[in-house]
Amino acid sequence: MTVWINGVAGGRLAPLDRGLQYGDGLFETMRVRGRTLRLLGFHLERLADGCRRLAITPPDEKRLRNELIRIASRRSEAVLKLIVTRGVGPRGYRPSGAERVTRVMVLQPLPPAARAPAPPARIRLCSTRLGMSPSLAGLKTLNRLESVLARAEWQDARVWEGLMRDTDDTVVCGTMSNLFIRRGPVLLTPLLDRCGISGVMRRWVMTQAGALRLQVIESRLRWEDVVQAEEVFMTNAVAGVVPVGSLRSGRSGVRLTEHGTALELARRLELL
Amino acid sequence: MTVWINGVAGGRLAPLDRGLQYGDGLFETMRVRGRTLRLLGFHLERLADGCRRLAITPPDEKRLRNELIRIASRRSEAVLKLIVTRGVGPRGYRPSGAERVTRVMVLQPLPPAARAPAPPARIRLCSTRLGMSPSLAGLKTLNRLESVLARAEWQDARVWEGLMRDTDDTVVCGTMSNLFIRRGPVLLTPLLDRCGISGVMRRWVMTQAGALRLQVIESRLRWEDVVQAEEVFMTNAVAGVVPVGSLRSGRSGVRLTEHGTALELARRLELL
Repeated sequence: MTVWINGVAGGRLAPLDRGLQYGDGLFETMRVRGRTLRLLGFHLERLADGCRRLAITPPDEKRLRNELIRIASRRSEAVLKLIVTRGVGPRGYRPSGAERVTRVMVLQPLPPAARAPAPPARIRLCSTRLGMSPSLAGLKTLNRLESVLARAEWQDARVWEGLMRDTDDTVVCGTMSNLFIRRGPVLLTPLLDRCGISGVMRRWVMTQAGALRLQVIESRLRWEDVVQAEEVFMTNAVAGVVPVGSLRSGRSGVRLTEHGTALELARRLELL
Repeated sequence: MTVWINGVAGGRLAPLDRGLQYGDGLFETMRVRGRTLRLLGFHLERLADGCRRLAITPPDEKRLRNELIRIASRRSEAVLKLIVTRGVGPRGYRPSGAERVTRVMVLQPLPPAARAPAPPARIRLCSTRLGMSPSLAGLKTLNRLESVLARAEWQDARVWEGLMRDTDDTVVCGTMSNLFIRRGPVLLTPLLDRCGISGVMRRWVMTQAGALRLQVIESRLRWEDVVQAEEVFMTNAVAGVVPVGSLRSGRSGVRLTEHGTALELARRLELL
């Protein structure tokens, strides 16, 4: 594992960086495959959108892109995490406007689970809720404590992911992935206007739906909708498209045997 | 300004610290007065409660207390900020349980506004909402982006604070302070069971109410309740008790001339 801070290898972070003080920043977790970054354009666009919404002066995009590409080329398979914070600032919540953005890059080995085609995953329902915070909805900010608490709910390594609901009982996303359910020719995915992270792999799936003759609709989904779906899959930038084989809430659960859409999407993703 | 990390002066932070990665930690902002820490016991209790709720193994309390007291003794008037994070961990949201807590201490000069008795403050209503996240409600976590966005809403230095509502239109707290309103012999303060930070100065005020022949009630308050109150004041650990002289929402506003309770509390605080 190797770390770069503002382009310098092996650096450490200034403790007054607002990324630590307030979680005042964003991140992207990217899959390195064949020494290149998958969906790099989508990652950079989401980051730029996040900087705009948080009024963070973004890093120079050309330099950032070149730095990411150079670092990714060091490994054939890896995960490259990019953190962008507002930078070091004076005391207090208010940004002075004079902060200079901090770039942190961490190149890590690919987790074993992401190397092989994913078997149908076991999913559980979490009790930790996502607060509805429209000003942050969709963004991959450094404020991730709800995901941490939700992920800490289970130890069983066979359970791949937990689904999270907002305080309105709407299913929003997994702790680290987005949700799709299929009903006939319709692919449904939760609306992310109140909370949740708008994943780059979610966006890629939405671009593919037409070619698969599926209509994509973003809507408010409940646990019952998920359980009753014909097919369920999860997406994330590192693992790709992961078919769901079972869903469990407390002591009740269902098995899902239909994985056609997920497998077709995973196949297309391999060709990228 | 001086920084200590895990007791070492001038340190820098490991970029894989979960405090940066996820905002996975807590903080306390303490007032140093006469080289001692005001309300230190309350600060340590809130920190311990936060660690328990986030399942962070807390720092050894005796050592932490001694370290804080030693650092505070360097200045007669100052702000001492303590950050406690879960520490460095492997990739992913799930805490491994083997993390070792990180302590960051920052000793900073007292802001000028906190030196003098506060004049009646101007308060505005923010448009940024607090998401309702019961699992984090009351805690002073490092996930503070909503406060950052709310505080960035205004530039006018004459406005001391902005009040924030949750997504249910309930007034919860200021960006950096807690709210009290008085109606006759009743002191009302927002319930913090869904979001907001339970401040140590708020707690201290609640302990004083009996002696002032006031009954304290925690409840859901709306902006109209605040505007119609006989007296309004804000509290925070550094500034103490701050009487509110005007409230503004968009183009409408009210002036408040009654400050008796706030001034009496401020007087008692001076005697602490």
